[in-house]
Amino acid sequence: MRKLTTLIALLCVAPVAIPAMADEGMWLFNKPPLRQLQERYNFTPSPAWLEHLQKSAVRFNNGGSASFVSNEGLIITNHHVGFDCIQKLSTAERDLVANGFRAKTRAEELQCPDLEINVLMSIEDVTTRVSGATKPGMSSAEAEAATRATLNAIEKESLEKTGLRSDVVTLYQGGQYHLYRYKKYTDVRLVFAPEEDIAFFGGDPDNFEYPRFNLDISFFRAYENGKPARPDAFLKWSPEGAKEGELVVVAGHPGTTERLNTVAHLESMRDVSYPWLLNYLRRQELLLEIYSERGKENARRAKDDLLSIENARKSYDGSLGALQDPALIASKRADEQRLRQTGLAGDAFDMIERAVAKSRAIYVERQMLSSGYAFGGDLFNKARAIVRLAEETAKPNAQRLREYRDSNLESLKYGLLADSPIYGDLETAKLADSLSFWMESMPGDPLIAKVLNGKSPRQRAVELVQGTGLANPAIRKELVEGGKAKIDASKDPMLVVARLVDARARELRKQQEEEVQEPLRQAYAKIANAKFRAGGENLYPDATFTLRLSFGAVKGYRLDPYVQPWSTTFAGLYDRSAQHEREEPWDLPKSWTDAQSKIDLKVPFNFVATIDSVGGNSGSPVVNRNGEFVGILFDGNPSTLGYSFAYQDVDARAIAVHGRGILEALKSVYGATELLTELKK
Amino acid sequence: MRKLTTLIALLCVAPVAIPAMADEGMWLFNKPPLRQLQERYNFTPSPAWLEHLQKSAVRFNNGGSASFVSNEGLIITNHHVGFDCIQKLSTAERDLVANGFRAKTRAEELQCPDLEINVLMSIEDVTTRVSGATKPGMSSAEAEAATRATLNAIEKESLEKTGLRSDVVTLYQGGQYHLYRYKKYTDVRLVFAPEEDIAFFGGDPDNFEYPRFNLDISFFRAYENGKPARPDAFLKWSPEGAKEGELVVVAGHPGTTERLNTVAHLESMRDVSYPWLLNYLRRQELLLEIYSERGKENARRAKDDLLSIENARKSYDGSLGALQDPALIASKRADEQRLRQTGLAGDAFDMIERAVAKSRAIYVERQMLSSGYAFGGDLFNKARAIVRLAEETAKPNAQRLREYRDSNLESLKYGLLADSPIYGDLETAKLADSLSFWMESMPGDPLIAKVLNGKSPRQRAVELVQGTGLANPAIRKELVEGGKAKIDASKDPMLVVARLVDARARELRKQQEEEVQEPLRQAYAKIANAKFRAGGENLYPDATFTLRLSFGAVKGYRLDPYVQPWSTTFAGLYDRSAQHEREEPWDLPKSWTDAQSKIDLKVPFNFVATIDSVGGNSGSPVVNRNGEFVGILFDGNPSTLGYSFAYQDVDARAIAVHGRGILEALKSVYGATELLTELKK
Repeated sequence: MRKLTTLIALLCVAPVAIPAMADEGMWLFNKPPLRQLQERYNFTPSPAWLEHLQKSAVRFNNGGSASFVSNEGLIITNHHVGFDCIQKLSTAERDLVANGFRAKTRAEELQCPDLEINVLMSIEDVTTRVSGATKPGMSSAEAEAATRATLNAIEKESLEKTGLRSDVVTLYQGGQYHLYRYKKYTDVRLVFAPEEDIAFFGGDPDNFEYPRFNLDISFFRAYENGKPARPDAFLKWSPEGAKEGELVVVAGHPGTTERLNTVAHLESMRDVSYPWLLNYLRRQELLLEIYSERGKENARRAKDDLLSIENARKSYDGSLGALQDPALIASKRADEQRLRQTGLAGDAFDMIERAVAKSRAIYVERQMLSSGYAFGGDLFNKARAIVRLAEETAKPNAQRLREYRDSNLESLKYGLLADSPIYGDLETAKLADSLSFWMESMPGDPLIAKVLNGKSPRQRAVELVQGTGLANPAIRKELVEGGKAKIDASKDPMLVVARLVDARARELRKQQEEEVQEPLRQAYAKIANAKFRAGGENLYPDATFTLRLSFGAVKGYRLDPYVQPWSTTFAGLYDRSAQHEREEPWDLPKSWTDAQSKIDLKVPFNFVATIDSVGGNSGSPVVNRNGEFVGILFDGNPSTLGYSFAYQDVDARAIAVHGRGILEALKSVYGATELLTELKK
Repeated sequence: MRKLTTLIALLCVAPVAIPAMADEGMWLFNKPPLRQLQERYNFTPSPAWLEHLQKSAVRFNNGGSASFVSNEGLIITNHHVGFDCIQKLSTAERDLVANGFRAKTRAEELQCPDLEINVLMSIEDVTTRVSGATKPGMSSAEAEAATRATLNAIEKESLEKTGLRSDVVTLYQGGQYHLYRYKKYTDVRLVFAPEEDIAFFGGDPDNFEYPRFNLDISFFRAYENGKPARPDAFLKWSPEGAKEGELVVVAGHPGTTERLNTVAHLESMRDVSYPWLLNYLRRQELLLEIYSERGKENARRAKDDLLSIENARKSYDGSLGALQDPALIASKRADEQRLRQTGLAGDAFDMIERAVAKSRAIYVERQMLSSGYAFGGDLFNKARAIVRLAEETAKPNAQRLREYRDSNLESLKYGLLADSPIYGDLETAKLADSLSFWMESMPGDPLIAKVLNGKSPRQRAVELVQGTGLANPAIRKELVEGGKAKIDASKDPMLVVARLVDARARELRKQQEEEVQEPLRQAYAKIANAKFRAGGENLYPDATFTLRLSFGAVKGYRLDPYVQPWSTTFAGLYDRSAQHEREEPWDLPKSWTDAQSKIDLKVPFNFVATIDSVGGNSGSPVVNRNGEFVGILFDGNPSTLGYSFAYQDVDARAIAVHGRGILEALKSVYGATELLTELKK
């Protein structure tokens, strides 16, 4: 699965640019790879072609990509991207994850409780203004404050002027700053979801593998003012879908890459952050498994979390494997040596070494307190957001922590006050484990004793979860609307804990922002500029969960002793299920066993292409030269797990559901004529 | 499950004695709790009664307890203790774990490939000789060498004199040394095993819980010279089994307790070793789960490992939870303060603090290299044993590492050369992960680069497992018999790696033995002696996986808002399965669903008692005042997870399979008349 997990966001410290080769690249829509497309595929998309694709693309802000596929706001994304909403709409009695969902009429469509989606409307280069805010001679702390103030101001002005969600995106890690303006939808409704058993056929064992057989799709519809939205653009559905050998283009939101990190920075990831995160992920995966094993309803409640964690664990495991391969580091070191010898990057490499050393020194405590890993579950996060919202909004916009800037408040409150399910037993299990994790990670820290208040982690977790009222959205609303006085007066134990740790949490965040992120931004900007001067135009910035264009060819690959085909078929699906005696996770839903005789078994189901993509790209539309929808990206094969650091297309491939396969399933398995009609319009 | 895992052995640094209360205590057979039994239960067992129980008790050297139950060598133990052998006798085609096993005749009994069991024949106090070996003024290293030489010598003399396996057991962590002589059996055959689904009904979720419904039993038979053994003693089977309220006595082999560790020592376990081990266990559990998910045969191969790891994880998790409860540490600190104030223990507490600090300093590297966690799977362990066997046996017995002493060589070679299954794919998965773990744990260590030899952990693991011949027992035999010259000349890559790391591994072991274990032994001996003087007779040594006697009453307990009954019934089993819709792990084997109408549903199935027991006690016989078998211990409830550090019988209980329940199952489910006849003789 190529969904971005929130974990990845915690790592995005230092994306930079590298010279592109082959079908490599996650390109900016305002700097598309025209030369490469022309040279390699004899194709030059027009500005209108590009704008149409850009405005058809949709970002799911919970970590994925999507696209409009009708003029009435119909959206296709992956099942695993829609999963969060599908699960939140489910109950013990109505399990839409297991059983799937189909709205035959608009009236039956179900509104997601807390989903925001974005469509990129325009990009404006604001580099001059942002870079101009910092003056030579400023300390790192002063530079950080000046930059933050400028970003907050630009976004506020833009929002007030255009009414559009406005985010300044830091590209080339400080080399450029672009203002992205988005049309935002918060009324998004579930239209169709297949059963999980076919959406995630093969489960964790087959995840990140190929050949694959997954109907990893779901349909949603964007609404405005209670009516289906009329998007500026949508993708026409190609009845044939992707064809072997052809050029395909992808518009999606790759989450994070680290392709031009220095060797010192990569080694720090290899030795510190990735092992720590994997340790956390394994711990979390087992906790959720153990919770799930206790009964069916538990399993249902923990499902989305568990799948996300499993996916992240497999992904990071592959990434760490790549970092632990001496060949990768050796190649990066050789590249770095060449750039150092030009002298163009000045003291950037030393700056990075110092920043990385600082980052290592505070890493564990920062993860625990600033990133909040010591406080598992949703309740603490809500408590902290309530406490900080009051404190931050009392300050001028320029001085606030980034997520509390004026231009972001609406989105932030939308998530904070949404009525999404919170399960007390699961909250308790997560909180108890995370408090224990904190105690293990920082033995003897007096702050832990204060938080535990004489109890064991387990006892304290029970006390906090049972004692807090924050699971109730009405109480959260009352506090948020009551403002600082009301919040300060509250004796809600979760708020008390959030206040108790906040001074230290903020201090760690300040150190990270001023002593790690700011020098990294400055240093990587020097490196990026050195590369611009040395390498010319072939530079795309590392991924930032913003809209990018990738391209490649639909083709299979050799993985000795096998040749893996460009596509799989429905026949292959039934074969693989039978090979595993139809046992979980290779069992099929009844709708699919019933439909076996009706399906055209030769139709392509999944396919692969040489597209550069990473987590966050899940749900990205795959289009042909005509800009028609020919498939939807959902995963990469094992060799793509090194894509955080380097692209290759020898045996690495992105995996997509085939457009014709989707039509075949909608017709022969689900008889979803209302959808087929809308897609063919 | 109360089976001892090998992990626990790695922790056994510092058992000491404490004053006993209530039904507490894991008593020595040569120092039984006569006063307590008389005072609390008005029962004084005769020397003959005790000797009969002692000689009926059996130790399974892979980590559990058992007992003779017929005069023809029939042995009962837990299914999860027999599991290791049952699994090794299974193949893809003949899965004795899933399907169970029943030998209707002697000829059908199946010999375990590498099992050794022991029966304790005599105990001799050798404290004077061992303590006399160390002289005042000796350095810690000299004292360690002198003690080791004396232990090796005593055991060799005893073996030569008696022909019995002879082990000196360090009690009260140096306060006393007792020579245990065992009758040893290596021809042990599987007689009967139920299906895993009933033996481990409820799986991991129900493990360490109560009420329970497990037929956690298996029968084996000891052979001598190809004929059923005639043991000196065996337990008569009580037809009624355990009764509510009655006194019961248990003879078993508790693995390790740490009840009188100092606070500094406990804090080190809480902050260093337990978190590290749990991290390792979680990692290993996921690795085995992921391996198992890839198909049925994988799942079968990994089953024993996975169950052991799950069990250890749950057990350590509970133990760490106890250590993280500030109330436990506070109570230990108060006890310690009282003893410190007597001044009787001299500088013991400071010695322990220093030793613990040294242990912390080398902990991770020692685990990786000396304990071998960097090299997962069986093949490296076999390689190291072969390399060291040649080196150690070239030295005089007195100077050898303990496991290579003359008196242990036969047992060691029996395990090393046994033809137990080794699965290349599982070995590779374990080795790759452990090499990666080493790399994460000790970034930049040059020894890692030497071992990896320019490869990634995964690539190197594939190379080593594919390249070694050590999976073949004939090759191992050839090397062992060829001696040092042959081994030194071998280019087998696993032997090469074992040689490469051995200098550092031995150095770390030496540091641990001389600078940690020896001072701890001396310090805890002082503490134990201080307690002997202060506390009188009520001192039992911490557990050492040697035969102990425990006692208690058969009774339920209150766990608000419930009262848990003294026993469960067969009716309860079918109810619980139905509550979980007969889904795994609450599904029942066909034999049990078929038998539902034939079984007497009111018969007790499992029961609880206030018996002091820990891992290693699994399979211990539970006897009544008449010395009759009334049940078999297999687990403890959640509150017993703190038993490593302190006993309580408010809501902590050991769990056993009821003797009458076993007869009912053998009769009404299995129709095992041959077993019933033998048990009733």
